Amino acid sequence: MKKLDFAKENGLIPAVIQDFETNEVYMVGYMNEESLRLTVESGIVHFWSRSKKRIWKKGESSGNILKIKEIKQDCDDDALLISVELDGAAVCHTGNKSCFFKNSFEN
Amino acid sequence: MKKLDFAKENGLIPAVIQDFETNEVYMVGYMNEESLRLTVESGIVHFWSRSKKRIWKKGESSGNILKIKEIKQDCDDDALLISVELDGAAVCHTGNKSCFFKNSFEN
Repeated sequence: MKKLDFAKENGLIPAVIQDFETNEVYMVGYMNEESLRLTVESGIVHFWSRSKKRIWKKGESSGNILKIKEIKQDCDDDALLISVELDGAAVCHTGNKSCFFKNSFEN
Repeated sequence: MKKLDFAKENGLIPAVIQDFETNEVYMVGYMNEESLRLTVESGIVHFWSRSKKRIWKKGESSGNILKIKEIKQDCDDDALLISVELDGAAVCHTGNKSCFFKNSFEN
């Protein structure tokens, strides 16, 4: 991994999770350095849960894990874009495939 | 707009910007309530710039503005996914179309 700027957001950076084939955006999670290390080492997405205040292996209870295909970082090194293969039916705890299922506005 | 949770991140929520046709993810920015209001009212993406500490109309200097097509919010109302039409050649200040042009890891 190239150097990342964890300082801007108190040790956390946002990670956008998208489908590696369709580019569908599934969710946004936060990673600290340890969760990113675990993600890269295991090939499976690990976040830092801001509510639980602990490392959170995505799918640890549902079994719907996210397998890493590619990680990109942005121009100023404070955000990640992670392409994944979803191993399971849904990313969202609601049962929806994506966490972004609520339409707020259309133009 | 439905209710959003601005409290979790000190008044800011991350907004993922993607192309409305290809789903290509262009960038992640942060919005406060005022920038979101300006975004919805104008139909043009406005962020809160954490470095400049002010409202930042994306493209205000480059002219490469982002026209809103659709806004979705996630299951727990603390992130936005915004589909846009890019009016210009590039989203990134580096001249790259997307801010995510640095490959960090492949599996």
